[in-house]
Amino acid sequence: MPKLWSRTVEEHRRSVHEAIVDATWALVTERGALAVTMSEIAETAGIGRATLYKYFPDVEAILSAAHERHVAAHLERLAELRDRGGTANERLEAVLEAYALIAHNRARHGPPELSALLHRGEHVARAQQQLVDLFRDLLADVGSAGQLRDDVSPNELANFCLHALGAASNLPSEDAVRRLVEVTLAGMRPSLR
Amino acid sequence: MPKLWSRTVEEHRRSVHEAIVDATWALVTERGALAVTMSEIAETAGIGRATLYKYFPDVEAILSAAHERHVAAHLERLAELRDRGGTANERLEAVLEAYALIAHNRARHGPPELSALLHRGEHVARAQQQLVDLFRDLLADVGSAGQLRDDVSPNELANFCLHALGAASNLPSEDAVRRLVEVTLAGMRPSLR
Repeated sequence: MPKLWSRTVEEHRRSVHEAIVDATWALVTERGALAVTMSEIAETAGIGRATLYKYFPDVEAILSAAHERHVAAHLERLAELRDRGGTANERLEAVLEAYALIAHNRARHGPPELSALLHRGEHVARAQQQLVDLFRDLLADVGSAGQLRDDVSPNELANFCLHALGAASNLPSEDAVRRLVEVTLAGMRPSLR
Repeated sequence: MPKLWSRTVEEHRRSVHEAIVDATWALVTERGALAVTMSEIAETAGIGRATLYKYFPDVEAILSAAHERHVAAHLERLAELRDRGGTANERLEAVLEAYALIAHNRARHGPPELSALLHRGEHVARAQQQLVDLFRDLLADVGSAGQLRDDVSPNELANFCLHALGAASNLPSEDAVRRLVEVTLAGMRPSLR
């Protein structure tokens, strides 16, 4: 296949893929994850059912792809905040707050049964590991600046952050989320004793 | 029905119920939650299949009952620690450490697919709320003793504890769990600024 042609095919595939994922996400957000059929998705995406099945075997697989795309976008945004200017401490605060707000909004605006359906996938475990790695590297930088307790490893503290900030999903307001970030950060400061 | 007779029936029902739950737990721990059938459970419990179906419609329902029993036992133990002697602060430390160790051991020794199967049930939400209530009351006592930050409500701090200590499930050792409890407690101390 000539290179240009193969690129066109690849682009076409990608745009169909995107259209399917977008259509599914829209339907699921409107009606809940269990009420959507492959036929409706094909219709909403403007493709035939046979084509749809060439891309995905079932609704769950499409939802996984949608979720994976969301997660990748979030990770990218957090990596941007990590790489911005400022002290290690400022960057840690920015990243943890952004992550907590993501957890908060996900719980409030995501389709209802979705998290139970999705939070089992392998890519979720991979994304969590990427998050822990991102937190850990930043925490190590904060440690080098002497602004982190030194009796617990950055890796354990990263795991603590991931779980503690998950509490944002139950909180009623963004102010409460910011207080949660404060408490989480306070737990990791150098001990004065 | 005479009272004595009805009590006997009730006791019999309860002991069959227990035998079923015990048998299921043993089988599931040995083989994983998805590999166990109702027939095997009936055989292990020493009852007929027809009797088994009078108690439970399927394996998942039995596992829910088993889980509910575990959770109730854990909550009871935590309530005991809460009601023991000592300062509010000491009791808080004891309760949080006990909870973190439960989370740690659950992840290590529970049957593998079980948590995905079970952690959707209504009784899990109820148990979580009971935990948050228990933490919150203790935290309020610690606050009255002036040993808690006063810019975040005991209820929000209780939610923080529940999630932060969930990190114990990923930790490699009980020492790491104790460090996690330390970090969690440090986040809630009165701020010095």
